[in-house]
Amino acid sequence: MSSNLATLLEQTCARISPPSSEAHATARRRLDTLTKPLGSLGRLEDIAAQWVSIRQQRFGDPIHKAVYIFAADHGIAAEGVSAYPSEVTHQMVLNFLADGAAINVLARQHHAALHVVDVGVDADMSGVVSLLHRKVARGTRNMLHEAAMSADDLQAALCVGIELAMEAAAAGYNLIAIGEMGIGNTTSATAITCALTGASVEDATGRGTGVDDSVRAHKAQVIQAVLERHFSHHLHSHPLDVLRSVGGFEIAAMVGMTLGAASQGVAVLCDGFISMAAAALAVAIAPNTHGYLIAGHQSAEPGHLLLLDHLGLSPLLSLNMRLGEGTGAVLAMPIVESAVALYTRMATFASAGVSEASG
Amino acid sequence: MSSNLATLLEQTCARISPPSSEAHATARRRLDTLTKPLGSLGRLEDIAAQWVSIRQQRFGDPIHKAVYIFAADHGIAAEGVSAYPSEVTHQMVLNFLADGAAINVLARQHHAALHVVDVGVDADMSGVVSLLHRKVARGTRNMLHEAAMSADDLQAALCVGIELAMEAAAAGYNLIAIGEMGIGNTTSATAITCALTGASVEDATGRGTGVDDSVRAHKAQVIQAVLERHFSHHLHSHPLDVLRSVGGFEIAAMVGMTLGAASQGVAVLCDGFISMAAAALAVAIAPNTHGYLIAGHQSAEPGHLLLLDHLGLSPLLSLNMRLGEGTGAVLAMPIVESAVALYTRMATFASAGVSEASG
Repeated sequence: MSSNLATLLEQTCARISPPSSEAHATARRRLDTLTKPLGSLGRLEDIAAQWVSIRQQRFGDPIHKAVYIFAADHGIAAEGVSAYPSEVTHQMVLNFLADGAAINVLARQHHAALHVVDVGVDADMSGVVSLLHRKVARGTRNMLHEAAMSADDLQAALCVGIELAMEAAAAGYNLIAIGEMGIGNTTSATAITCALTGASVEDATGRGTGVDDSVRAHKAQVIQAVLERHFSHHLHSHPLDVLRSVGGFEIAAMVGMTLGAASQGVAVLCDGFISMAAAALAVAIAPNTHGYLIAGHQSAEPGHLLLLDHLGLSPLLSLNMRLGEGTGAVLAMPIVESAVALYTRMATFASAGVSEASG
Repeated sequence: MSSNLATLLEQTCARISPPSSEAHATARRRLDTLTKPLGSLGRLEDIAAQWVSIRQQRFGDPIHKAVYIFAADHGIAAEGVSAYPSEVTHQMVLNFLADGAAINVLARQHHAALHVVDVGVDADMSGVVSLLHRKVARGTRNMLHEAAMSADDLQAALCVGIELAMEAAAAGYNLIAIGEMGIGNTTSATAITCALTGASVEDATGRGTGVDDSVRAHKAQVIQAVLERHFSHHLHSHPLDVLRSVGGFEIAAMVGMTLGAASQGVAVLCDGFISMAAAALAVAIAPNTHGYLIAGHQSAEPGHLLLLDHLGLSPLLSLNMRLGEGTGAVLAMPIVESAVALYTRMATFASAGVSEASG
């Protein structure tokens, strides 16, 4: 393992302070002075208070949004766990760059800068323009037989995310959605979920991009075998070992970006199952990360709900989506913006001359 | 009752055709060609298909959004059923016009034209500019003792909404959120909910703007007495009789606007409990209205869930909001826009050269 890379991870984790509880309390008091029944903005009030606790004195700065899509392939895809062939990862990266995917439509509509990162696609993409070239390797190894990645490759992928988070913060982005593309990665996320939460494979395994009952049953068997291979003697593995053994390069980069964003006081909008698996690993590595997380949506994948419960997060949207790419996170961006705008722009009872509640 | 007014209602109802099932089926087929796993956009696919079924050949037109807030007072407020005094209706109308309320912030953020309608505020607002002056009377009567409104006033309030819907459609609005302001109106909506769905008062009565346990219990007793007075001998009252007996002027105008919008092929984004009570009455009056309704959010009021179940609608958002004003509906507008944008702008598997699923 390169000691420079390991040092970057350690330095990043050491820089993550929890959001300000004092700013949070101040925000709650101000919310109660606004011209609305007490608490009647529901979750929007929680988000506004969280935003103020994260951004503190800078809470009123304009919200600058970006979405990062980390793409990588998975050796486990050889086991027939997905409805789609592995080359779809590569094809969809080209589709992102050609502006044809769901995330392109949503990012444009919601004014989020879109960045596509090749962190491990199993194709030569070196000549592709507009792509962030951060390939660690052409896909992970097959985790049914060996660890998905080497310790060096794990550190490299984590650092991809950390460094991009630093660049994003330096560029002024303060709300970042983290999405992904990787055929086979719900299998990886499911294994991570079981390792982190202790959930059973049966409870955590879903249909991914849409496999039928028999493929889902096969997928669950594969995941069970993966868990037995890597964790049968290590019930409480270190999150970095979990990530190295059953993760993916895109998941590792997402962990890095989540940690890097938190270290810079940047709010992280989590997307679906894969994104939340990365967030859960980030919290396991550096618990102070938790306060920077906003759950964008609840996906149709059962493992996502297990992770939301594990982290005590409540998603802003629940639209039965299961697409990834950051789509659920970007779709939640206007809700975060609304929450902050309400906090900063509404009149108070005193300023508007409106009578307050009795009692 | 003025026969002209009654005729307008009848003509409007007669013009409401169901959205096109053919266009709906065409939209479903097209959704399956887009570069995403089948069905993976979840509820967004439902909304896109509904939009196409409503708008048909005009589905690709730009979405022009408006929100109408209907304000009125309620005689039942004299019974102490709200946390706020009646004058807050008037004060909040002024707050809307001064740009200080939650709906002002949200309407501006989401580019929805905001229209505030005095359909029955118990104050002289005749000199107020920027307000749509459609006052039928200064508040309803106390429905604990008599019908909330006369048959003539009911027709007048319905026509306010129908006419504004016609004007909105003529102005090019194709997505309308319908909100309200009226101290005491959750009491009215609860009585409507019980009358339409057969739900018990205990199940349907909530905290409105935030009353405590004892006021909620008193509110439930008042509603029980209201129902016994008006419906004890008419278990299956006509929806117009329900509206006249226990409704409000803002609710009647919202019923009219919902019917008028449906008659013009304009989609209606319902807000919270009051808005959904109006929508449920509109559907009871003209069942074809149903296909034009989109449930923006699920409010914290228990009666709202009863109405959603009654209508078989699934809300886009569930953020524990209970503010009214159209806030939940406007907050859902970007989701509708996203659904339509995804439908019209995403690449297909064929155009993008992406492999389709096996099996």
